[in-house]
Amino acid sequence: MIKVGVAGYGTIGKRVAEAVLKSDDMKLVGISKTTPDYSAYLAKSKGIKVYAHSEADLANFEKAGFKVEGTIKDLLSKIDIIVDTSPGKKGAENKPLYEEAGVKMIFQGGEKANIAEVSFNAQANFDQAWGKRIVRVVSCNTTGLSRVLHALHSNIGVKQAKVVLIRRTCDPKEVKGLVNGIQPEMKIPSHHGPDLNTVIPDIKIESLAVVVPTTLMHLHTLIVEFKKDTSREELVELMKNTRRIVLVKGEHGLTSTNTVVELARDLGRPRYDLPEVVMWEDTINVKDGWGYLVYAVHQEAIVQPENIDAIRSMNKLMSKEESIKKTDASLGIVYGSLYK
Amino acid sequence: MIKVGVAGYGTIGKRVAEAVLKSDDMKLVGISKTTPDYSAYLAKSKGIKVYAHSEADLANFEKAGFKVEGTIKDLLSKIDIIVDTSPGKKGAENKPLYEEAGVKMIFQGGEKANIAEVSFNAQANFDQAWGKRIVRVVSCNTTGLSRVLHALHSNIGVKQAKVVLIRRTCDPKEVKGLVNGIQPEMKIPSHHGPDLNTVIPDIKIESLAVVVPTTLMHLHTLIVEFKKDTSREELVELMKNTRRIVLVKGEHGLTSTNTVVELARDLGRPRYDLPEVVMWEDTINVKDGWGYLVYAVHQEAIVQPENIDAIRSMNKLMSKEESIKKTDASLGIVYGSLYK
Amino acid sequence: MIKVGVAGYGTIGKRVAEAVLKSDDMKLVGISKTTPDYSAYLAKSKGIKVYAHSEADLANFEKAGFKVEGTIKDLLSKIDIIVDTSPGKKGAENKPLYEEAGVKMIFQGGEKANIAEVSFNAQANFDQAWGKRIVRVVSCNTTGLSRVLHALHSNIGVKQAKVVLIRRTCDPKEVKGLVNGIQPEMKIPSHHGPDLNTVIPDIKIESLAVVVPTTLMHLHTLIVEFKKDTSREELVELMKNTRRIVLVKGEHGLTSTNTVVELARDLGRPRYDLPEVVMWEDTINVKDGWGYLVYAVHQEAIVQPENIDAIRSMNKLMSKEESIKKTDASLGIVYGSLYK
Amino acid sequence: MIKVGVAGYGTIGKRVAEAVLKSDDMKLVGISKTTPDYSAYLAKSKGIKVYAHSEADLANFEKAGFKVEGTIKDLLSKIDIIVDTSPGKKGAENKPLYEEAGVKMIFQGGEKANIAEVSFNAQANFDQAWGKRIVRVVSCNTTGLSRVLHALHSNIGVKQAKVVLIRRTCDPKEVKGLVNGIQPEMKIPSHHGPDLNTVIPDIKIESLAVVVPTTLMHLHTLIVEFKKDTSREELVELMKNTRRIVLVKGEHGLTSTNTVVELARDLGRPRYDLPEVVMWEDTINVKDGWGYLVYAVHQEAIVQPENIDAIRSMNKLMSKEESIKKTDASLGIVYGSLYK
Repeated sequence: MIKVGVAGYGTIGKRVAEAVLKSDDMKLVGISKTTPDYSAYLAKSKGIKVYAHSEADLANFEKAGFKVEGTIKDLLSKIDIIVDTSPGKKGAENKPLYEEAGVKMIFQGGEKANIAEVSFNAQANFDQAWGKRIVRVVSCNTTGLSRVLHALHSNIGVKQAKVVLIRRTCDPKEVKGLVNGIQPEMKIPSHHGPDLNTVIPDIKIESLAVVVPTTLMHLHTLIVEFKKDTSREELVELMKNTRRIVLVKGEHGLTSTNTVVELARDLGRPRYDLPEVVMWEDTINVKDGWGYLVYAVHQEAIVQPENIDAIRSMNKLMSKEESIKKTDASLGIVYGSLYK
Repeated sequence: MIKVGVAGYGTIGKRVAEAVLKSDDMKLVGISKTTPDYSAYLAKSKGIKVYAHSEADLANFEKAGFKVEGTIKDLLSKIDIIVDTSPGKKGAENKPLYEEAGVKMIFQGGEKANIAEVSFNAQANFDQAWGKRIVRVVSCNTTGLSRVLHALHSNIGVKQAKVVLIRRTCDPKEVKGLVNGIQPEMKIPSHHGPDLNTVIPDIKIESLAVVVPTTLMHLHTLIVEFKKDTSREELVELMKNTRRIVLVKGEHGLTSTNTVVELARDLGRPRYDLPEVVMWEDTINVKDGWGYLVYAVHQEAIVQPENIDAIRSMNKLMSKEESIKKTDASLGIVYGSLYK
Repeated sequence: MIKVGVAGYGTIGKRVAEAVLKSDDMKLVGISKTTPDYSAYLAKSKGIKVYAHSEADLANFEKAGFKVEGTIKDLLSKIDIIVDTSPGKKGAENKPLYEEAGVKMIFQGGEKANIAEVSFNAQANFDQAWGKRIVRVVSCNTTGLSRVLHALHSNIGVKQAKVVLIRRTCDPKEVKGLVNGIQPEMKIPSHHGPDLNTVIPDIKIESLAVVVPTTLMHLHTLIVEFKKDTSREELVELMKNTRRIVLVKGEHGLTSTNTVVELARDLGRPRYDLPEVVMWEDTINVKDGWGYLVYAVHQEAIVQPENIDAIRSMNKLMSKEESIKKTDASLGIVYGSLYK
Repeated sequence: MIKVGVAGYGTIGKRVAEAVLKSDDMKLVGISKTTPDYSAYLAKSKGIKVYAHSEADLANFEKAGFKVEGTIKDLLSKIDIIVDTSPGKKGAENKPLYEEAGVKMIFQGGEKANIAEVSFNAQANFDQAWGKRIVRVVSCNTTGLSRVLHALHSNIGVKQAKVVLIRRTCDPKEVKGLVNGIQPEMKIPSHHGPDLNTVIPDIKIESLAVVVPTTLMHLHTLIVEFKKDTSREELVELMKNTRRIVLVKGEHGLTSTNTVVELARDLGRPRYDLPEVVMWEDTINVKDGWGYLVYAVHQEAIVQPENIDAIRSMNKLMSKEESIKKTDASLGIVYGSLYK
């Protein structure tokens, strides 16, 4: 039983913590938080041990009358591995603490690639994290890109890829977004292409990104030139058989990210989470050697399974295929189709 | 076992159907739909019998290769009561069909009050629907108002009420909303006050309404002059002890409808549904004989339990208190607080 | 010729600067800015002298190759009065600079009332700023409230007022807003009522506020108990004859803030500015001694004329009526109707 | 003097009518409308003659007490050419009326290409409309694409183009949009590529499109493989020297469509209209023979000048260069930069 701590209990942290709870080869020792908000109460009511992130945070918890188990230092003394899910760039600030405690550590995609020994995506490079001490699970967008491009590249061969990422402005619970407008990334190509190359180095890719006023999901329009002939049918078949990718149909009324979320709600998904890449079967096309694919990425949920697989690889618990299968089973992640 | 059919399987229909499935004194015979979209497949996969709404719709289902059980006429021949959840004003068009079949019928708040013998809210006037043949469950906004005002009026006494309803523009799954703007109801007072009076006739109330660009929840700012002295503490206590009302705290980070929805997701609520009125404890105030209360109404979910209670009252199945308690237990509806 | 400087050149600053340029009894000596963005170039191209706000800012301008006239200290040495339009609470930080320079000063509503000798609204209390050294022009929402309530109170008499303010989340040019949700002010009554009382002390008012995901305009639903009998007709007539208030009709297609903005665009208003309160004639109603009025407040533009009038009163340039008339003429501000 | 009528007075109609008024070689005889809303009053107050679109509409105008000049048939009897700006597909319904009246006719991009003899963009194919009887001015998106690709293709040579169009959901004045979500076009490639080919047949292009919850502008991410070597500098220079295209800089704070609209407001543009393509200079890039360009298209304004040029070409009034120059001068359309 690997003893796991989770630093941060926001969008990613709470999902990783719950995924650890559902993994019978791991034990969630506790989570750390900076503020005694409602999610601290929820964590406690679920039996999760809550630690203050720092001494200063400890004071806030005490002031609010919320009893914590100590600070993150106490948590670090009891675990094998810490999953840092704090907001972008904060992970780098926390790293010395983890080093001092001598624990393995996982960071998220908001940190720079050089914080870790390897940038990780389960399907693309599980084995590279094998036994490693420091791993970075790449961001939601890079995770989506990695899944799709890894499948295309290893099965058909990608000569070059162009992708436009249409990004949600902030998460549903936040208040800091773009309200009416479109905000393109000024740097073209954007950082997403190079970030994909930290996971899959040998794909030639250029990315552009824009931010739009929505909170639900990102959407990628992926344009790929293949190394060999393929067909729409072959592409559809490949996507249907790739783990952690599901196909939906516009003709069934699923024509937008908000209808896809409605489907996830109707399916009874916890928090309507869709850790899968959600691809529109209607949009898959091949023409003159180029393929076109449009899919949505649920930014809140997509890296949840990747963190679990990273823990397994870093601790040499099982093989890639076993780990992915086990994670998918415990989290209810499917592929092919979301319904019959 | 009361045999129930549900006409329409949209926002309200699917919730009522599932609530019937969870009620051990009722049997869901089937639902009717107009189009073979993804929710038809989901219904079938849950074992729900799907009927085409009309002969014309039947052709659409056949064209899509989706096997239905017949049309609504077939459904009507097998049930005791139909819950019509079709879009506003369509219920009136369907009514002759129901009359012909000789079934009891429930309509929703989008229909005019005179479609039914009584406009219904479980807590306010359960007994008035007792044994009735045609009942109208009032709209989401009127349901929220009825719950809160019934509690205030029967416990403290309401001299007059002024309410401003800040309405969501459309449901999350729809594409037909106000994108950037505020749209006041031109008719002042709006129809909501008179609609409340169809349920609770003896409250003097004036309402104003505006539509805003959000999909998650409505919000009411309720201003009430009381018939006798009261205090903030008394109001808080009353609200805490009123069924189907929950209090949340801004100081816990729950300062908006989107954070309340995040809480519902974290709680594992199916579809993040909040059939309860969600009131901000921080906003409850009393000053110079007037009370101030601000609460959110989840338009998708709030009438779900009311439809179940209406079925029970119309069929004389049990008393008001028993029915409300039973419905709340089967649907996981609470009061007081959403977490400890 | 009063020599005026404007500190800050954002939403309010640029409008005040242009209004000074259009006032033949004032001279715009210059404006101060913190960053060399596009509006610095526009200011210069209009012949406006640009000063860096601080020494540190000066370095930024130099780095960008943008030639400024000096820092705000240089500007202060050449003027009689500074209009501080910097973001909330920054005015208080700037105040010592202004004190040292010995200039008169105007602050905006984002500052606390005690920063100034008087909180100002032209129609409500022009004379109280007469000859004063430090004046605070109240916020957009308080300005709208002051105009309407001053007219009602001085003509009919207001026994008590309840107002719900539905606020835009941020300005159109900003990226920091609420995207999908409604965010009520947790403190009830909100600060707006007390703020109105800094201008008109003898009105009994309670206010509630919510923030919604729009950028165009605020909207107020105002509910007033009158001291004496009145009628809808009298109210309409009064509003039609009150300066800086215009009536629009829903039946003409003007049923929301976004259609009102479309009208302003069609009218050729600079920046589609509506310094007037925009009231829906359809919504004006009187019932049982209470009046109901719904109007929109263009947060970017409404305080523009107030700042000009404040300058005149503080410098004893002319009477209230003369100043308001002169300001309205120079800025194209009307009352009654926006079109025939 | 060419006698012009405009059918429809919405987003495009009012802009075309005003552009005709500003053209000294044309006379605006009148416009037709279906409803007596505020814009009918504005038109009349500007001295524009208003006709009811049909006999049925005439009754509505009479009921509202709005005096019109007759119906569209009366208007057609007095003009040389009609510019039909009615909503998509309605133009085809109106066409027989125009045929009967024997007038020349212009339709908009909402109609199918085969409604006209030629699909038109001033810079790309002015001469093809020379003397023609029926012309279709292509849609806002196709107009933007035509301008940019015509410049690239005729100066550098385009081997192939991939474009992702990120579309606004509805116009600012409308209430029928996507509120929170992203809605991809299910048909890939989308119709925009083929539509571009109705104007410039020899460019190989594939397009994808998504709709996002904003009202202000569309945004295109254009990816082009060139026929010969070029550089970022060459591309920037070319775009700077192409009429009806302006460059803006992110480093000046113009990093989104809403800040670009703020600039247009500050510039005093009527209705903040930007008939120019607005391209971000920062985003222009060339890498491995491919060029990347990101620009915004103001859907309300971009076809305004194109309609004027189409009138001139169809009536053989002057050459392409003369017409474009004349139109730009009368409408204040620039290129290169919007400010110094």
